[in-house]
Amino acid sequence: METVSTARSFGGTQGVYRHASTACNCEMTFALFLPPQAEKGKVPLLWYLSGLTCTHQNVMDKGEYRRLAAELGMAILCPDTSPRGDDVSDEPDNWQFGKGAGFYLDATQAPYATHYRMARYITEELPQLVAENFPLDMTRQSIFGHSMGGHGAITLALKAPDRFRSVSAFAPIAQPSTAGWSRPAFEKYLGSDETAWRAYDTTLLIADGHKLPELLVDQGTADSFLDDGLRPWLLQEACAKADIPLTLNMREGYDHSYLFISTFMDDHLRWHAERLFRA
Amino acid sequence: METVSTARSFGGTQGVYRHASTACNCEMTFALFLPPQAEKGKVPLLWYLSGLTCTHQNVMDKGEYRRLAAELGMAILCPDTSPRGDDVSDEPDNWQFGKGAGFYLDATQAPYATHYRMARYITEELPQLVAENFPLDMTRQSIFGHSMGGHGAITLALKAPDRFRSVSAFAPIAQPSTAGWSRPAFEKYLGSDETAWRAYDTTLLIADGHKLPELLVDQGTADSFLDDGLRPWLLQEACAKADIPLTLNMREGYDHSYLFISTFMDDHLRWHAERLFRA
Repeated sequence: METVSTARSFGGTQGVYRHASTACNCEMTFALFLPPQAEKGKVPLLWYLSGLTCTHQNVMDKGEYRRLAAELGMAILCPDTSPRGDDVSDEPDNWQFGKGAGFYLDATQAPYATHYRMARYITEELPQLVAENFPLDMTRQSIFGHSMGGHGAITLALKAPDRFRSVSAFAPIAQPSTAGWSRPAFEKYLGSDETAWRAYDTTLLIADGHKLPELLVDQGTADSFLDDGLRPWLLQEACAKADIPLTLNMREGYDHSYLFISTFMDDHLRWHAERLFRA
Repeated sequence: METVSTARSFGGTQGVYRHASTACNCEMTFALFLPPQAEKGKVPLLWYLSGLTCTHQNVMDKGEYRRLAAELGMAILCPDTSPRGDDVSDEPDNWQFGKGAGFYLDATQAPYATHYRMARYITEELPQLVAENFPLDMTRQSIFGHSMGGHGAITLALKAPDRFRSVSAFAPIAQPSTAGWSRPAFEKYLGSDETAWRAYDTTLLIADGHKLPELLVDQGTADSFLDDGLRPWLLQEACAKADIPLTLNMREGYDHSYLFISTFMDDHLRWHAERLFRA
């Protein structure tokens, strides 16, 4: 693992690191904020998964998570959204597929299966790497994310109920298997047999019996992707049927950008901290 | 004036606006955050001047000023750092001169005098424009900035003691007329007669009798520009000689980036608010 950069911030350290990934079969970069408390012992770990077109850097620049994470004593881990590199198959003119659009799944179809294994990367390889290299209490992990990363956070948590103490999302894609911007990607990554897609769709995972103790979601009412891409009412229906307590905050006038995310970042950090620091 | 974008943020509005500037003889873009209180009446205005290579956008993305500005009820105005456009003279490979490096002065030398009139833009044209278009209490203005923008904030405040209620800076260039990264720019913008440079140099303006009621500066000790470019001890000497109360906070381990600025943003916002809201 190579240190790309570190800088002091709010008494802690914002780092960027690069490593050769076996899951993704390429070099991967991630951002990790360690709060001041990490100088004295292990700290809980909150994962943040980013949305379409993002790298590790967007939330690092615009998420405004460090002030409160430093106060609360939580590490924030921000992975990239897809494999990277010249030999990674891509559609450069399509922002909804390929690089920047890994959808946190393990592709099974050629040529994508060679690199697009973000589920395995996030759930197996990266946890092991950060546990070995940083003072993190891996018994205390939570996860959240934005848009495609909200989809990633919820689906990964549904499939690993013992791993994450809490999960939340900003404007998550509720049903990617039917949404216009993700359906073509699912077909290319996973093939045309839609039964294989169910493992990567929040509403279908819930329908298939996967559970969460509770879920927090914030969604802007002025989000231009609300009606076609995100559709929080599908999440509401699925959670209601499965008796999963969902707190869905519809935020009047907010859009899909980091100006929305940063506004409600503190609420989500406090919500996760309450659950991460419970005995 | 044209609205480039607006988005809800922390209950207020982060806007970006473009207008034809007569001072700079080109189109200029600026960012303005209006806190929620601006819906009910005029709010105080805090100017933020950015550093070399920046546009209006860097601090908008990475400065983390909106949460507390919304709470305190202050508008934050972030201008660009130079004139822009294809017909603006520039040295594209030189990040210390030309576009992104206006040094908040009015150039007198050809070909730069045609567009590089940032002092006039910031002190005359932009205040009039925003006063006409937004609910701002122009009797309550303060100013701060970073690096070249710290230089800009302090020099402009020294020359307009009645206009700004308070001035502060992150890692300001204390003596640009002798610093390696600004001396060549001063010569090109202002000519070889160094007496003309004194009006744009904090330490020399103070030596020439210009006053401030007080000054707040934060400076990282791990800032790579500390010894050659910034030299806060020159500011300390000048303020001591002139009996200007200077609070200089040397911040252990912090660099020159927005990871430093955002860490101490709240301190500066509170400091200005105390002075802006005084009767």
